[in-house]
Amino acid sequence: MDKQGPLFIEEYVKLHPVDLADRLLRLSESERAELLTHLPREHAAAALAELYEDQFEEVTKGLGKDRLVELVGELEHDDAADILGEIEEDKREELLEALPDEVSDPIEELLQYPEDTAGGIMSDRFITLSTAETVQACQQRLRETADREKDDISYLYVLDENERLVGVVPLRELVFASPAATVQEVMIREVQCLRVDDDQEEVARRFEFYGYLGLPVLDKVGKLVGVVHASEALEVAQEEATEDMQLMVGLSGEERSSTPWQTSLQRRLPWLYVNLCTAFLAAIVVGFFEETIAKWTALAVFLPIIAGQGGNAGMQTLTVIIRDMALGELEPGDGKKALLKEVFLGFINGIAIGIAVGLVGYFWKDSPELGLVAGGAMVLNQLAAALSGVMIPFGLRMLKIDPAMASSIILTTVTDVAGFFFFLSLGALALQSVE
Amino acid sequence: MDKQGPLFIEEYVKLHPVDLADRLLRLSESERAELLTHLPREHAAAALAELYEDQFEEVTKGLGKDRLVELVGELEHDDAADILGEIEEDKREELLEALPDEVSDPIEELLQYPEDTAGGIMSDRFITLSTAETVQACQQRLRETADREKDDISYLYVLDENERLVGVVPLRELVFASPAATVQEVMIREVQCLRVDDDQEEVARRFEFYGYLGLPVLDKVGKLVGVVHASEALEVAQEEATEDMQLMVGLSGEERSSTPWQTSLQRRLPWLYVNLCTAFLAAIVVGFFEETIAKWTALAVFLPIIAGQGGNAGMQTLTVIIRDMALGELEPGDGKKALLKEVFLGFINGIAIGIAVGLVGYFWKDSPELGLVAGGAMVLNQLAAALSGVMIPFGLRMLKIDPAMASSIILTTVTDVAGFFFFLSLGALALQSVE
Repeated sequence: MDKQGPLFIEEYVKLHPVDLADRLLRLSESERAELLTHLPREHAAAALAELYEDQFEEVTKGLGKDRLVELVGELEHDDAADILGEIEEDKREELLEALPDEVSDPIEELLQYPEDTAGGIMSDRFITLSTAETVQACQQRLRETADREKDDISYLYVLDENERLVGVVPLRELVFASPAATVQEVMIREVQCLRVDDDQEEVARRFEFYGYLGLPVLDKVGKLVGVVHASEALEVAQEEATEDMQLMVGLSGEERSSTPWQTSLQRRLPWLYVNLCTAFLAAIVVGFFEETIAKWTALAVFLPIIAGQGGNAGMQTLTVIIRDMALGELEPGDGKKALLKEVFLGFINGIAIGIAVGLVGYFWKDSPELGLVAGGAMVLNQLAAALSGVMIPFGLRMLKIDPAMASSIILTTVTDVAGFFFFLSLGALALQSVE
Repeated sequence: MDKQGPLFIEEYVKLHPVDLADRLLRLSESERAELLTHLPREHAAAALAELYEDQFEEVTKGLGKDRLVELVGELEHDDAADILGEIEEDKREELLEALPDEVSDPIEELLQYPEDTAGGIMSDRFITLSTAETVQACQQRLRETADREKDDISYLYVLDENERLVGVVPLRELVFASPAATVQEVMIREVQCLRVDDDQEEVARRFEFYGYLGLPVLDKVGKLVGVVHASEALEVAQEEATEDMQLMVGLSGEERSSTPWQTSLQRRLPWLYVNLCTAFLAAIVVGFFEETIAKWTALAVFLPIIAGQGGNAGMQTLTVIIRDMALGELEPGDGKKALLKEVFLGFINGIAIGIAVGLVGYFWKDSPELGLVAGGAMVLNQLAAALSGVMIPFGLRMLKIDPAMASSIILTTVTDVAGFFFFLSLGALALQSVE
């Protein structure tokens, strides 16, 4: 990611597509257009494939339509589908029409799958074998026909006469097996498959658990239509982790520091308003006790501590639960066990922090009542934090919503409202008994 | 992850090691020991390799020492090193001594690398070729010597006479290239390498950016000592994402919902105490203004809103920055640009939310002063939130600390202290001018 000026074409050609894409992003619109026009087609297309989908329109803005069509036609079908899926429908239709049918048909095929499914992330390029071929014959045929520049062949797929997937031959078998052996003999019969509509998060988990290099994807009638590669699974895993982290705090799930500020504003502000409404909910609780606070202002000092500690402990619980769900370590049935652990932990934490807060209340304000009220409210609010830290993500999942969705906003609402209520009502009680 | 009772040995043997490991975790100590004793050695070892390292001691507790040594000896060297790296030194030494030298030596070799480096995650199993061999001769040799059960060969590594890495041959070349071609002719000369001490997060990024299936690892004198596979990179990416999410909120980075509560308590409680200290810092600020609050209790109602909104907006900024850093999208030099964007965004957000809060203050409490004070404090605190959301992770990184480390705790301290201070001092000013 260097920051020198533009290079000569010969130098750009030597860059890895990833680095070329990075350079493109740092050029002006006219420089980009010039570079994309003069680079060899395969280099320009490879760099475009490395962009985030939402950067494509920006990067190709100044490019002539003919060249754009040419470059899109040079892309892998799945990369082209990812990009075209992000741009406006008019422009997409225009580009697809300008492409020859043998290119636009498979792209349109891939475009029908939602982007976060196995169908949406698979490649439609794979090599098939038939059962009766010998290893030597396969090698011979591959040498003549396959595109050897493509790095991502790890398995070959065996179809029977009815075009049904019956086995998988790891590429290494073509090297290691005896040349006279038949595909039938060397293939693995128990094939792990994906379905086009499998969720991409589940797909990434299977790659992580089982360490596959690639998995075949079947359509609804069981026909082999694509392959998901391990490198794709890595991207999905990163994407899903980003999404979870962001959704928790009220971000879109797709924001980067390079996202234009207008877009960031549009996506963040609505959540901040939601937050504001929940904050007023908590403020209303405080409002009920204004008289109590007027009589005993030390309560106002401790108020944010009770609520804040609840929020912090709840975020710890919430983060563990949401991450474990994403990694597939927490099945729906494990909820009760997790709840028991967290509530117990919340109780112990509550006692430990409650004593500390109580002592401070006692010594700082010289008031044993304040100490008791603060300590007691702390224990109760830690329990509320533990309960909501577990129940919010499980609840969201039951409602078929992403368990991370706005979860920290909901959680802090609970811990604020509960914390304020416990603390101030205990405070009001203490005040009554003193009077 | 089914939950039926124990199966017969013949049925366990049919399970994938990942699923077998999951079953092991759900058995009692004595059942586990019995199963691990009676399973074929390679099945038992494969299942142990799939556990988290910190589960190994628990799972093998009831197992006789001889059998334990046997199973550890059956593991891949890197899996054995990962496991042995986690157990107590005495027990580690005991196991290593009981193993034959040809097994313990390479394990000890791997144990010298920190677990979060390329050396710590690499496998020491790879196949080397020499430049003069023909493709056919390679194939012949591989057929005779290589362990074909191992699924993770994607590249073969070419050494010159001095044992230096001079090229890489993708496995597919052995299939596609002409049998008479020499290794010299088909190898890729520009080899991307890792160093043993490269950080694992950086390694995962290179896999993600460049889509490699494997990368060779060189030691300090440039000798090839291992290979990192793509599947390992996926695990690292997940591990690092978990760590970032957890560190932010004061968790250890390695907690799971299945972590025993004692361990969770030991790791979480200290951070909650840190939190408590920072909360008192904010409470001291409130304490300075107790008189003001006594005169104008509506301030206590709005206090948590100003601070809370700052915390929420700051968390949005912080989350974007930390995630972008982890994904390698934000180089140290990009800090200024990110800061400008976030501060500008904070200003606009501040105005937008400030107006809303101001209006509520005005209408709810019928007080234009309260509206002005709340609105103004909100704008100022949103700026503080944006500044700290960017500067905390960049600052931590400059100090060579993980940018996620306790960052949300630091952030909310800033937004609480700043929010309370802005709001209450503006409130005190307004009160003075009214009096």
